[in-house]
Amino acid sequence: MSHQQADAIDVGAIREEFPILQREFDGQQVVYLDNAATTQTPDPVVDAMSDYYRESNANVHRGIHHLSQEASEAYEAAHDRVAEFINADGREEVIFTKNTTEGENLLAYSWGLAELSPEDTVVLTEMEHHASLVTWQQIAKRTGASVEYIRVDETGRLDMDHAAELIDDDTAIVSAVHVSNTLGTVNPVSELTDLAHEHDALSFIDGAQAVPNRPVDVKEIDADFYAFSGHKMAGPTGIGVLYGKRDLLEDLNPYLYGGGMIRKVTFEDSTWGELPWKFEPGTPPIAEAVGLHAAVDWLEDIGMDRIETHEEELAAYAYDRLEAEEDVEIYGPEGGPDRGGLVSFNLEGVHAHDLTSIMNDHTIAVRAGDHCTQPLHDKLGVPASTRASFYVYNTREEIDKLVAALDDARQLFA
Amino acid sequence: MSHQQADAIDVGAIREEFPILQREFDGQQVVYLDNAATTQTPDPVVDAMSDYYRESNANVHRGIHHLSQEASEAYEAAHDRVAEFINADGREEVIFTKNTTEGENLLAYSWGLAELSPEDTVVLTEMEHHASLVTWQQIAKRTGASVEYIRVDETGRLDMDHAAELIDDDTAIVSAVHVSNTLGTVNPVSELTDLAHEHDALSFIDGAQAVPNRPVDVKEIDADFYAFSGHKMAGPTGIGVLYGKRDLLEDLNPYLYGGGMIRKVTFEDSTWGELPWKFEPGTPPIAEAVGLHAAVDWLEDIGMDRIETHEEELAAYAYDRLEAEEDVEIYGPEGGPDRGGLVSFNLEGVHAHDLTSIMNDHTIAVRAGDHCTQPLHDKLGVPASTRASFYVYNTREEIDKLVAALDDARQLFA
Repeated sequence: MSHQQADAIDVGAIREEFPILQREFDGQQVVYLDNAATTQTPDPVVDAMSDYYRESNANVHRGIHHLSQEASEAYEAAHDRVAEFINADGREEVIFTKNTTEGENLLAYSWGLAELSPEDTVVLTEMEHHASLVTWQQIAKRTGASVEYIRVDETGRLDMDHAAELIDDDTAIVSAVHVSNTLGTVNPVSELTDLAHEHDALSFIDGAQAVPNRPVDVKEIDADFYAFSGHKMAGPTGIGVLYGKRDLLEDLNPYLYGGGMIRKVTFEDSTWGELPWKFEPGTPPIAEAVGLHAAVDWLEDIGMDRIETHEEELAAYAYDRLEAEEDVEIYGPEGGPDRGGLVSFNLEGVHAHDLTSIMNDHTIAVRAGDHCTQPLHDKLGVPASTRASFYVYNTREEIDKLVAALDDARQLFA
Repeated sequence: MSHQQADAIDVGAIREEFPILQREFDGQQVVYLDNAATTQTPDPVVDAMSDYYRESNANVHRGIHHLSQEASEAYEAAHDRVAEFINADGREEVIFTKNTTEGENLLAYSWGLAELSPEDTVVLTEMEHHASLVTWQQIAKRTGASVEYIRVDETGRLDMDHAAELIDDDTAIVSAVHVSNTLGTVNPVSELTDLAHEHDALSFIDGAQAVPNRPVDVKEIDADFYAFSGHKMAGPTGIGVLYGKRDLLEDLNPYLYGGGMIRKVTFEDSTWGELPWKFEPGTPPIAEAVGLHAAVDWLEDIGMDRIETHEEELAAYAYDRLEAEEDVEIYGPEGGPDRGGLVSFNLEGVHAHDLTSIMNDHTIAVRAGDHCTQPLHDKLGVPASTRASFYVYNTREEIDKLVAALDDARQLFA
């Protein structure tokens, strides 16, 4: 079906592909604003996976029989499609993981544990997700490396002067989030990568909140490694992607061992197979790869530019509506090109969990908590925040409902 | 629907739930005998996942809104159901991984890398799958530990005298496959576990080819750790299980770091959350857990005892039919209680890949290769074998077709 109306998105047509958005609780239709946690999955993606199970299901690794050939081709084609989507140089640069978190751990184990030493520093940002913050912290503890954090300024942006100060010849890797899942900040990841490269350091970008929502070109960023998840981009759970530059991946040893990633095994030792399979031991997420392929097709049919614009508009609208409320504190930059499609905030005198619970009484789905950025919340001086996050099927009317529900919270907690 | 006819399985009724088994290539219906690689997925399992995406999809970790509550409950209930299925002591002992391979790596990293030292030996068997063989080999290399292999005798069984000799006070862990994916041997894993425990060693059992096919009770075996996969037991890809005794899991540190497994994070350090979540960082395989739950329901509705009997009968029938062919060499024990539902063999003068290709001309799906047991194939003196593996929907008539197709191979390669 067509998802476009001239240059704008046809949200009405899109919503028809999401039966879950028609669900009602207590007679009220779901307002789903928890997309930074996971996006909903359109019918064509669900159907692609069901069809796979009903028609072509088999194990891959180039089995000889018809079904295994079909499954192998589908699995490999999914790598190709994802490579094309982010402008990587082919399937060798696209490793399917179980989620973004595993992609970060893969890099930390395969590269970090082998290469880091007490002279090295790992430069993170204060707005990193636990997936990268905790992982590098632990690998640094084991290797004796230091961890440093690029400051977040009062506007919720990275202090790039501080970045230029921290990133020096001791820096082994710069690991930065592309779009903050808490502040919404769109970081200058290309600039950070340049800084890293000037000092012969590597760059890793956590793109979990970027790839689903805007055009991402790994060559343009020049990132050495880049990770994201299927379930945040209209795709399935159980699959993520780690992109890596081919020459770098070729030099790395795998961190997980098993079948399908082997050249030769004896009782004494083993050697590894080709990219990307050497990083995908065991039976991989085959049906999930088929679903991810369908999700990429679905997103590109809409157009990533249009999705970016739609979300930027929704975020700016939400920011403005919430900012007009005197008792609401918003975290991160104002609406505009460096704010992604989410807004985290607190209502004075009401704990985020209580506010979220009241939102739920109106069947508005938002998320309360530290959003896996505890140290950032410590810095903001709050234990938690409420986050509304948008996707291609959301509307201004849904944001109006969110703002209207604040009154209930005020009345209950006044 | 009912899957039983008195004490036997109603294969006809079961097959109706697998549209893929009705597929035809060149006018010939699929004969799917590649179940040790992956089993087919019945409609109720596929539907459970589709329904999840269309009705309850959300991220878990106890979000406050309705959909997240539903998703969290479904995800937690899947742990409970799997715990009940293998007789574990509750969800704390059931970790969802991406596949069996990851379960083995989790243990090797979380326990092995931390605990093994040059004085220790890891005792494997010569019939281990690469997932365990390569993993322990690599962890041993890093820690200085030694790896030893329990001999496989001429009948394809473990030499238990050799096991008793190898397992001694230097043994840190015994890692054994429950049912060999190549030989079909059902190993005395309870006895091996006893030997390990007599010497204060741990036991890990690779149950990838056991849990799908026979009743497995981890308490009866007394295994400390036990791993298996969803996609080999009528469930989805993208999910596996690592069972571990609670007190042991509590003492282990996680090997993957990220969100959802954290108690407290600062810019300096982190502490871990509760079982099993501390081993499941990032967004877990939620839809896959729902599918695995449905698969367990589906299997238990048929009855694991009946499935075991059905497969044992098919394997014995296949063994007898193939043994009657003078130019066929079969690997592993004759049909009976210590042969699982698969038979690997070679036809004299025909490479396994060629034989499998000819089988495919008849739309018979079997697998050629080393089945991720290269060292075992070296010992058998063959580069590869052809494996026919059975599941609950297979019939004797399908085995007859396999045997009949051998003539084609003989004619082509005579």
